[in-house]
Amino acid sequence: MANKLKDAWKGGKKTVNGWLAIPTAFSSELMAQLGFDSLTVDLQHGVQDYMSAVACFQGMQPHGTTPLARVPWNEPGIIGKLLDAGAQGLICPMVNTKEQAEAFVAACRYPPLGNRSNGPVRAGIYGEPGRYFYTANDDVLCIPMIETKEALDNLDAILDVPGVDGIYVGPTDLGISLGILPPVMDREEPEILRIYEMLVKKCDERGKWIGIHCTTGAYVKRMHDMGFTFGTMGSDVTNLVLGVRAQLAGLKG
Amino acid sequence: MANKLKDAWKGGKKTVNGWLAIPTAFSSELMAQLGFDSLTVDLQHGVQDYMSAVACFQGMQPHGTTPLARVPWNEPGIIGKLLDAGAQGLICPMVNTKEQAEAFVAACRYPPLGNRSNGPVRAGIYGEPGRYFYTANDDVLCIPMIETKEALDNLDAILDVPGVDGIYVGPTDLGISLGILPPVMDREEPEILRIYEMLVKKCDERGKWIGIHCTTGAYVKRMHDMGFTFGTMGSDVTNLVLGVRAQLAGLKG
Amino acid sequence: MANKLKDAWKGGKKTVNGWLAIPTAFSSELMAQLGFDSLTVDLQHGVQDYMSAVACFQGMQPHGTTPLARVPWNEPGIIGKLLDAGAQGLICPMVNTKEQAEAFVAACRYPPLGNRSNGPVRAGIYGEPGRYFYTANDDVLCIPMIETKEALDNLDAILDVPGVDGIYVGPTDLGISLGILPPVMDREEPEILRIYEMLVKKCDERGKWIGIHCTTGAYVKRMHDMGFTFGTMGSDVTNLVLGVRAQLAGLKG
Amino acid sequence: MANKLKDAWKGGKKTVNGWLAIPTAFSSELMAQLGFDSLTVDLQHGVQDYMSAVACFQGMQPHGTTPLARVPWNEPGIIGKLLDAGAQGLICPMVNTKEQAEAFVAACRYPPLGNRSNGPVRAGIYGEPGRYFYTANDDVLCIPMIETKEALDNLDAILDVPGVDGIYVGPTDLGISLGILPPVMDREEPEILRIYEMLVKKCDERGKWIGIHCTTGAYVKRMHDMGFTFGTMGSDVTNLVLGVRAQLAGLKG
Amino acid sequence: MANKLKDAWKGGKKTVNGWLAIPTAFSSELMAQLGFDSLTVDLQHGVQDYMSAVACFQGMQPHGTTPLARVPWNEPGIIGKLLDAGAQGLICPMVNTKEQAEAFVAACRYPPLGNRSNGPVRAGIYGEPGRYFYTANDDVLCIPMIETKEALDNLDAILDVPGVDGIYVGPTDLGISLGILPPVMDREEPEILRIYEMLVKKCDERGKWIGIHCTTGAYVKRMHDMGFTFGTMGSDVTNLVLGVRAQLAGLKG
Amino acid sequence: MANKLKDAWKGGKKTVNGWLAIPTAFSSELMAQLGFDSLTVDLQHGVQDYMSAVACFQGMQPHGTTPLARVPWNEPGIIGKLLDAGAQGLICPMVNTKEQAEAFVAACRYPPLGNRSNGPVRAGIYGEPGRYFYTANDDVLCIPMIETKEALDNLDAILDVPGVDGIYVGPTDLGISLGILPPVMDREEPEILRIYEMLVKKCDERGKWIGIHCTTGAYVKRMHDMGFTFGTMGSDVTNLVLGVRAQLAGLKG
Repeated sequence: MANKLKDAWKGGKKTVNGWLAIPTAFSSELMAQLGFDSLTVDLQHGVQDYMSAVACFQGMQPHGTTPLARVPWNEPGIIGKLLDAGAQGLICPMVNTKEQAEAFVAACRYPPLGNRSNGPVRAGIYGEPGRYFYTANDDVLCIPMIETKEALDNLDAILDVPGVDGIYVGPTDLGISLGILPPVMDREEPEILRIYEMLVKKCDERGKWIGIHCTTGAYVKRMHDMGFTFGTMGSDVTNLVLGVRAQLAGLKG
Repeated sequence: MANKLKDAWKGGKKTVNGWLAIPTAFSSELMAQLGFDSLTVDLQHGVQDYMSAVACFQGMQPHGTTPLARVPWNEPGIIGKLLDAGAQGLICPMVNTKEQAEAFVAACRYPPLGNRSNGPVRAGIYGEPGRYFYTANDDVLCIPMIETKEALDNLDAILDVPGVDGIYVGPTDLGISLGILPPVMDREEPEILRIYEMLVKKCDERGKWIGIHCTTGAYVKRMHDMGFTFGTMGSDVTNLVLGVRAQLAGLKG
Repeated sequence: MANKLKDAWKGGKKTVNGWLAIPTAFSSELMAQLGFDSLTVDLQHGVQDYMSAVACFQGMQPHGTTPLARVPWNEPGIIGKLLDAGAQGLICPMVNTKEQAEAFVAACRYPPLGNRSNGPVRAGIYGEPGRYFYTANDDVLCIPMIETKEALDNLDAILDVPGVDGIYVGPTDLGISLGILPPVMDREEPEILRIYEMLVKKCDERGKWIGIHCTTGAYVKRMHDMGFTFGTMGSDVTNLVLGVRAQLAGLKG
Repeated sequence: MANKLKDAWKGGKKTVNGWLAIPTAFSSELMAQLGFDSLTVDLQHGVQDYMSAVACFQGMQPHGTTPLARVPWNEPGIIGKLLDAGAQGLICPMVNTKEQAEAFVAACRYPPLGNRSNGPVRAGIYGEPGRYFYTANDDVLCIPMIETKEALDNLDAILDVPGVDGIYVGPTDLGISLGILPPVMDREEPEILRIYEMLVKKCDERGKWIGIHCTTGAYVKRMHDMGFTFGTMGSDVTNLVLGVRAQLAGLKG
Repeated sequence: MANKLKDAWKGGKKTVNGWLAIPTAFSSELMAQLGFDSLTVDLQHGVQDYMSAVACFQGMQPHGTTPLARVPWNEPGIIGKLLDAGAQGLICPMVNTKEQAEAFVAACRYPPLGNRSNGPVRAGIYGEPGRYFYTANDDVLCIPMIETKEALDNLDAILDVPGVDGIYVGPTDLGISLGILPPVMDREEPEILRIYEMLVKKCDERGKWIGIHCTTGAYVKRMHDMGFTFGTMGSDVTNLVLGVRAQLAGLKG
Repeated sequence: MANKLKDAWKGGKKTVNGWLAIPTAFSSELMAQLGFDSLTVDLQHGVQDYMSAVACFQGMQPHGTTPLARVPWNEPGIIGKLLDAGAQGLICPMVNTKEQAEAFVAACRYPPLGNRSNGPVRAGIYGEPGRYFYTANDDVLCIPMIETKEALDNLDAILDVPGVDGIYVGPTDLGISLGILPPVMDREEPEILRIYEMLVKKCDERGKWIGIHCTTGAYVKRMHDMGFTFGTMGSDVTNLVLGVRAQLAGLKG
């Protein structure tokens, strides 16, 4: 099964990602029917673990949404398990050095590009039989998060690690690391926006993709316009909260 | 633990109910923090069963939201289990006759008012020790649904069953039963609105409460204004969908 | 979403059904990739309940297999829940009288054909929006089991109940009821085979479909040849056991 | 697998039953190692459902404890499922009439004694292959609860229903039904103790077994001495509470 | 939400901790009603994982018990997840060196004190909106376990790591490491008691808290008297076992 | 509880291992009744996590099958948890150096042989009381996987690590590492078979055991004949697939 998200990016499309913090296949299949190009199961800050990630992947599968996951940390055990479960891309938090980027890539790639172990229990059965091993190294997206001052300092080295397909920006952690508070999501501070522009430029120069975590659709649009390849338009949680609040406003007239 | 919802109604307050179709304590605790007076775990049409209802009750408990459930059907086994699990009120679908209303009430009340069996595994531990048995018959809300032509024909008899605290209107099933299609939620048809007014009047005459399933906050307001005691302002599912759609609109500018 | 199984039957195709007793989406998606036309989640004798049935439906959905379920008993609560969850047909055990068949059909059909309540939480979202209500009465398969002497005695009356789409034969219970032991699955007793032929004939005369529970592929073939519309080729459990035993034979050389 | 509990009773042994309200195999295996002759999964008032009952049965199996369950209500669907899951006896609440006792027995017995359907998914695999069907009608214990005034009025008729192996006394519901409050467990009221003695006598006359729900070991001893065949020595919940309270007493010196 | 446990300690109160090995919200809410100041979900030796920890936190929340967890190992992925899930303190096993203590603290603290990533999915929603980030570094308790000879050798260095709030003693591992067998919990060996006294003294000198794992209430009292800030009075498992054994003693008269 | 598998190996028996990728106690108990000497819960490539491993161990326990697990990676947290849960042996993937083998052994052994922490929550309760600590270091099998060129290069050093009981060969990863494709299981390539023979010889010289992952019974037989101590005869998944395919062949005649 080709990675539709990667194909879209190759075709120059700006995409919209959704974020799953609620650990059920049911909420995942709901989100998958609402028009997201990809959905990311958040095992770091979401109420998610490996089993719920499997369920979420199952929920989104019939709807053609590209399954992604954010791992809890740069640890090889869970990276391998999520890829075997069918993730077509992984976002890894707190990749601050070249060595951390290399370790992340190595855990995601079969030899000779890395040291991933073979056994794609769900990933393989959905591909053409026997093909998964040959296509996975190319299909699976490796996306380290850039969200600290240290990562900015090491940015060129991280971006130049072979196998890094792109980067993902975490606005609140980045702000915290830079001492720019409060830790909000859709940023307006000029110094942060300048960093975003720099990141887009660095990725463009290398033909790498770049995404960012946002809350509102309007901000995703703004990031698309700034040059980001994809933006996350909130999670199931934030959209549920916004949905209820809008109705409460209607209730109060 | 007194039934705060019942107290609010006694005080003349119009309340807003939420509806839980997603089977997790986490989504329940999210909903419980958004301002609903009560939350109803929907075991009939939601992706819910007894165990997920327990989890949802646990999720909403610290937030003071009154826990309700809609049972899948007028069957005594699940009625008893949900009350023991801590539901402070039950909504029962498709109560069309006096006999069905009597059976529903009997399953909800301890003797001599009914035949509920004693063993409030979660309900009891939250009350003052040893008090639950004495207060439950008064605190637990028994709310049959009025959603068919047959129920309208038997309305007086149903409303006059001792122990029926109020009724709940199911707009789509009522429309289907009356042959008024399509089966939508927030109705505009004059003949349906006339029925609503009649139902409010019949309940008012008897000092009984009346609620209705709605989708939007604006329609809940309209029903409050018509005289309904409470309105359901959509479910976790409908609010999530509305929330995402609003952001998608923002994305498209 | 049209009922592909029903379409196949209308086109004269003999189909092969699989049976799910293991309560996971993962085993369901495995089975769904092996070539079954339909898969039945067995809530009667399988280790299954409502939540696991939802998971099994989710697991098979991307593979185009028609989702069916066998209910634990002729009880309206679980019938409605399974249809709302997306079952495109239900098999009901121990339907022995016309009245029981009528009750089963009523629970499966929206008015005016029955008294099913509207709220297709998963069934609806997969159909074209707003269409499910109009197509469900035609698409959902109602299949009572014929598995007792009493059912044979009442066969004509059961088959003539409007809304009964076909019947399903339970070989072991039928044998037990007739006093023909031991209670095995793929029967050879002439008196039982004569009953099968009679059942096929009665269904053919009415344009109704007929299925039967089998263990081996060879017996399914034999039943197809006898005129059965579909045969169940064992469950995940029986096929796992046969699979291991075949390898154990290979091990022993 | 023979029913060890029934064998013990036949041998004149007084037994001690435990009660499972916590829905995990882990708590079940803990309880199973503490010396109970049987453990009853309480699907009526415990936080239990079918799936957790399966888990509890699995947890106790290696320890040789006889697996029992109390069903939520006299409903055939769950009765069949629990027996198929391996329960070697069922306790049914609120059996108040001969007809209710007959329905309960019918759901527990294969033809010609009843109408249980064949498919012992876990029960069968633990017996000698192919033997379960022939031994189940004799091995499975059918134990209606006597816990209302109506049941006392119909006691002879209930006890004389063929297939009723014994009865189980529910002290709090019995007291409630008789108007003897508060609804406590280990009773001291003379009129209740006289009823217990009458029940023991009626069972003895018919060679039927009789059990009772207790909290403390001392009260189980007292009931054994009164002639009860078995007593339930509290649940996982009550014993956990008593255990913690004893240590708190030690803490306070 | 302020950390009530820390406030109690600051006020000089000796507290009693409970320990959760059974993975259900239900057993957690039972324990939370029995008077423990804090409850620790044991992800190391208990039958617990991330999802069950979330459930246990939900179960104890309405009762005001401070939620703690013991992590399986000094691994940043699970540390972050448990804090995001609402743990107000973490106990980390086998912290034997200054470097291990520093790594543990870093994973628990937001910059500039550590490298915890921002995203308190449950922790944040219970605090005042937007406040959690500012208070967490002060509120979250970081408690390394001292349970090896190596840790004793490095004790001063570990205690002097900024951000270490206190230590927790594991009696069986400590004994094993020192070669003092058998590995029992509530120790009587003078050489071990002398170590306890030394640990209390070292913590007192630095104004740090110190806890210890015990089984009985009497031993917790003894440790309080020795100067320990808090003692764990057994787990749900040990208290259940002690509870049943006490009743069995009563049964035998 | 002695390790029956180790006893069998000491007695010179060649054993057959099964592999569990389906995360249920039910499928585990099915497999356990089919004649495997041991069953390995695969937390690396199977759809398994800690909680499902506990369930699988519970499912196989009454049948006397030796419980093993493959860990997701050489990470101490999960190693300790699985041993505490009752695994009598662990298989660790991708052990490529002496240092990795030493780390794996250290996590599996109590002091002074390693640094495992004491708290055998399920492992201990099944042994004789208080005995587990004294026997575990001898009973628990530590089996690193040899599946890369680097591991072959370091073979002597790995085999000579004290506490390594044997090795397990992963055929597909080994082939990938050596550049011998496609990545199939039951290998025929002479160069791979020569490596197998070398591995058997090296293990024999040291009195260590050696196992290998196979799919068919015939290949397990071949490996037994080559000198392997044990062979894995496919997983629940592969055997289910082979079972269904055999019946499909029968269906087509």
